[in-house]
Amino acid sequence: MASTTSPIRIGIVGYGNLGRGVEAAVARNPDMQLAGIYTRRDPAQLQPLNAGTPVHAMGSLLSHKGQIDVLILCGGSKDDLPRQAPELAAHFNLIDSFDTHARIPEHFANVDSAAQGGQTTALISAGWDPGMFSINRVMGEALLPDGATYTFWGKGLSQGHSDAIRRVEGVAGGVQYTIPVEEAVNQVRSGVRPELSTRDKHQRECYVVLEQGADAEAVRRSIVEMPHYFDQYDTTVHFISAEELAREHAAMPHGGFVIRSGNTSAQNKQVIEYRLQLDSNPEFTSSVLVAYARAVHRMAQAGQHGCKTVFDVAPGLLSPKSAEQLRAELL
Amino acid sequence: MASTTSPIRIGIVGYGNLGRGVEAAVARNPDMQLAGIYTRRDPAQLQPLNAGTPVHAMGSLLSHKGQIDVLILCGGSKDDLPRQAPELAAHFNLIDSFDTHARIPEHFANVDSAAQGGQTTALISAGWDPGMFSINRVMGEALLPDGATYTFWGKGLSQGHSDAIRRVEGVAGGVQYTIPVEEAVNQVRSGVRPELSTRDKHQRECYVVLEQGADAEAVRRSIVEMPHYFDQYDTTVHFISAEELAREHAAMPHGGFVIRSGNTSAQNKQVIEYRLQLDSNPEFTSSVLVAYARAVHRMAQAGQHGCKTVFDVAPGLLSPKSAEQLRAELL
Repeated sequence: MASTTSPIRIGIVGYGNLGRGVEAAVARNPDMQLAGIYTRRDPAQLQPLNAGTPVHAMGSLLSHKGQIDVLILCGGSKDDLPRQAPELAAHFNLIDSFDTHARIPEHFANVDSAAQGGQTTALISAGWDPGMFSINRVMGEALLPDGATYTFWGKGLSQGHSDAIRRVEGVAGGVQYTIPVEEAVNQVRSGVRPELSTRDKHQRECYVVLEQGADAEAVRRSIVEMPHYFDQYDTTVHFISAEELAREHAAMPHGGFVIRSGNTSAQNKQVIEYRLQLDSNPEFTSSVLVAYARAVHRMAQAGQHGCKTVFDVAPGLLSPKSAEQLRAELL
Repeated sequence: MASTTSPIRIGIVGYGNLGRGVEAAVARNPDMQLAGIYTRRDPAQLQPLNAGTPVHAMGSLLSHKGQIDVLILCGGSKDDLPRQAPELAAHFNLIDSFDTHARIPEHFANVDSAAQGGQTTALISAGWDPGMFSINRVMGEALLPDGATYTFWGKGLSQGHSDAIRRVEGVAGGVQYTIPVEEAVNQVRSGVRPELSTRDKHQRECYVVLEQGADAEAVRRSIVEMPHYFDQYDTTVHFISAEELAREHAAMPHGGFVIRSGNTSAQNKQVIEYRLQLDSNPEFTSSVLVAYARAVHRMAQAGQHGCKTVFDVAPGLLSPKSAEQLRAELL
């Protein structure tokens, strides 16, 4: 864990909200350097945050192999990452934020096979959930085996649910906030280990702009009754103007908490809580990716190849400080 | 990280509050087994929680070498651990909760030299602070490099400060609670990164039983003016009866929180909070020691010898579940 003298060279693949967040985060880490942004769009049309950041066509990535230590994949979990991560892990150390929980074992197997073949280190599913929340679920369970774990999300804007609203007929625009039910949170914090249904834990709040002439009540019903997305929740729909949507709902706040409550003896309850309050969901996810890219670089240097997850990364590997410094200053 | 078939055999060295907590925690972990308690007292006089737990004289420890996978040292940081940990690390994998922050580098060096010589794995300074709080300080800093970290303790009973009260002339008994100042906590949670003095962050509350004929005001003054322990804090002293002390103040609650607040861009603040609410400080510390003993066993099996800290332990190593299971269930 000795500090390296030459900076860690990061390549960004894909330049949406996450890619922009990674560009900003790399600039805040003096031991890192941005090798370039790789895009499927016309590189000349892309406007990086920093005008000096090199932008390249995806097609040139392989020819830059010797100039990149770790690639940070900033594409989507649905279409981009399942294809890109195994393909690129054959050639590069990399990290992604693959977040389709149910398909993680399959994604892991594909990336692991590519990384073992290419003798690279590839970490999947970093971010805050999966990511920091997952770590706290594992540690909570290990520290308090006689207990229960609760994950609450919000208050925050859910991208998937906002997309679902926008697909409803008669909707011109809209966003959805996931809100933890305060009573449930307080119960869990008290250590009583309640049994909570989906409806007990979260509420959903929608801000919707109607298309000209749309039937508000029909739109409301289509939203609150939508299977999986809304039918199992108490959902409130507010109709607002396009101006209000643009003015009040453009930010991407999120967060939530993981609570483990358990007993270490019949009389003694213990409660562990990990909480995030994020003004910007994509910027925080990007910051997690960048810190874990440092760990990926170190694990690759130590010959620890194959697919990894946050469960495989010792906390010290995330810090630019040396092990001695961490023990002296932060232990 | 494959699950082992034979249980991890734990030896407890020292049997006070912490040792009792470890005995209770091992019983809650089906992949572990208690090899025995080792004591400097007369083994026949010691009453374990479970009558079936073997109790041995310290002198027999070395001759039981082949029957123990990991020793958990449950002695004090002042006199026991600085001597015991290096001595025993020459022969056993072990873990301790050494918590004199300023002397950690020295303790690490002594234990490392013994463990390297003996080809054992020895993890020092596990618990919650140092321990879980330290991990959150390192991770918070790594995820949000442009930020500030705040550690608050309490509300909880401080052993060191309670001992200091009891040494005051005229005091027959007493306890001290450390209490975070709510206003400071709320400021920190809002993400504004305030500069806080020692006095701004914590208050101290003392419950004191006077000796017959003692001068209450003189005792109060000796406490609140005591250098280092109390003079930098707002301290309140309550005089109570011996009965009330025994009835209301026998438990050992503690806890606190580590908050990292930082910016990922000029406009976006992010706040990470890790919080513990503990009914029993020693029982929780014991639970942490037991989970990390599992990691020590696995690191020793993997040939990772020498002295370690919580910064060197990947979260997955703490769990009895396999890596596949963790990815499928908790990522």
